[in-house]
Amino acid sequence: MNLIHYLKGKKKAVDGFLGNYVSSPRKRKDCPVHLRKAIGYSLMAGGKRIRPVLSIASYEAAGGKSNNIIPVASSIELIHTYSLIHDDLPAMDNDDFRRNKPTAHKVFGEAAAILAGDALLADAFHIISSVSMDPAKLICVIHELANACGPEGMVGGQAADIMLEGKKAKKKDILYIHTHKTGALIRASVRIGAIMADSGPDTLASLTEYGEKTGLAFQIIDDILNITGTKAEMGKSTGSDVARGKNTYPSIFGLRKSEKIAEKLIDESIEALKDFDKKADPLREIARYILARRN
Amino acid sequence: MNLIHYLKGKKKAVDGFLGNYVSSPRKRKDCPVHLRKAIGYSLMAGGKRIRPVLSIASYEAAGGKSNNIIPVASSIELIHTYSLIHDDLPAMDNDDFRRNKPTAHKVFGEAAAILAGDALLADAFHIISSVSMDPAKLICVIHELANACGPEGMVGGQAADIMLEGKKAKKKDILYIHTHKTGALIRASVRIGAIMADSGPDTLASLTEYGEKTGLAFQIIDDILNITGTKAEMGKSTGSDVARGKNTYPSIFGLRKSEKIAEKLIDESIEALKDFDKKADPLREIARYILARRN
Repeated sequence: MNLIHYLKGKKKAVDGFLGNYVSSPRKRKDCPVHLRKAIGYSLMAGGKRIRPVLSIASYEAAGGKSNNIIPVASSIELIHTYSLIHDDLPAMDNDDFRRNKPTAHKVFGEAAAILAGDALLADAFHIISSVSMDPAKLICVIHELANACGPEGMVGGQAADIMLEGKKAKKKDILYIHTHKTGALIRASVRIGAIMADSGPDTLASLTEYGEKTGLAFQIIDDILNITGTKAEMGKSTGSDVARGKNTYPSIFGLRKSEKIAEKLIDESIEALKDFDKKADPLREIARYILARRN
Repeated sequence: MNLIHYLKGKKKAVDGFLGNYVSSPRKRKDCPVHLRKAIGYSLMAGGKRIRPVLSIASYEAAGGKSNNIIPVASSIELIHTYSLIHDDLPAMDNDDFRRNKPTAHKVFGEAAAILAGDALLADAFHIISSVSMDPAKLICVIHELANACGPEGMVGGQAADIMLEGKKAKKKDILYIHTHKTGALIRASVRIGAIMADSGPDTLASLTEYGEKTGLAFQIIDDILNITGTKAEMGKSTGSDVARGKNTYPSIFGLRKSEKIAEKLIDESIEALKDFDKKADPLREIARYILARRN
């Protein structure tokens, strides 16, 4: 299979859905224009859509065939975008650039950035609850997503990350931060694909293991790229973790060992798919891509 | 009926649910302690729980009898609390006091306050999706709630409110702000009760009218009390709307006319319940209470 081609096709489907969402008549009619612009600016800033693509790839690996996966997978990108907007705020990571563009609060002001994040979080659930399909399955999806982005998921990880800034964290703290701040939503993306495809418990367990391991590897590589990457490659300030006293895998294990840990996780995530046929090839290739990526 | 007794009983049921939520083993195990404290501090600060009570009263007026309404109604208080935390932030209304206590960001810092708000928003949907009942009905509830708190609902109203601060707003802008910032969630509270009770279209339409009118009246009275109330009564700074150049009903219509408008809305909201039996008496009494309240 051709991964570049695959990623491009799925990104196009997701971007199409998100473009319609941003410019929907409902939003044009009943959402203040400044807020609508802040939402659109952040959501359409050119992300890789890796979480929706993982969700779609997991869905296909588990035998799913319906187009209902597109709105559901796209809603995960709303959650991811909201988290970036809030994480970039001055009170949080205070980042001025994201994807080579000024961050939302630099362009629209802090109030609009906070509200755009809030709006995207609420709208993710609005989108999922608008899909015409088996409501029991939708409730499972909502439960999974709310859990992953709540205080025992992504928000918990972000809170721990900020509170431990400048302090020497223990290995278990770093693992908590990474598995929650980034890992939980990636794990949920993969699981939501599996749930949408009516996976049985064995399939769901294998895909969950894949999601957990690629999710953790993703954040470790992110930590590494924050040291070794350039601003042009990353589209945001690099070296900022060290400057800020962030606890990262390289800060605890060193660069070389962190790379080894990420490699092992990716090997294991591919191994978790051993009983899947070639429909899981995109998942296998995405795992390799996560390890090799440079931005 | 005795309204004080009724309000006290329902508040107790909601507080019981919220207390269990705040101290749940899951939260104790997997949520950073600082974040958990910020969530608990804000949620258990002694609110009147008027939105959950309205939802329960609407449910009972429409003939509902199950205890499933308690978690669903309580989840609306999570949304309300999140909105207060974010609204109080320095970048938004910059309020230092709420319910006679320092606001969340004054006690826990801005980052924890933003994250506590985010956590409550996500957890509202987690709670609803955890209730064991007809999933089709739960999806309707989630759809209603996500719509009410999103960019075409509460967040839209808050955005318009902030963006028009210090500017002379038109009557239609004030109406937008009030029906969205406060009205949308009160309307949804009442509608969610009706949906939970399997209301037919006529019952839902009547309760929707009740919710819209009491919701708007609630915010007009809030505006009036911001001028005429004392800090001790209100538990927060009063006179702040004028100082901040907020657009309110009194700023456009004057105090006396605003009172008249609120009175008329309350009369009409009670009139909307004319075909309901005495099970709707709590809704009627709550409407009168909203008009007469002093905090």
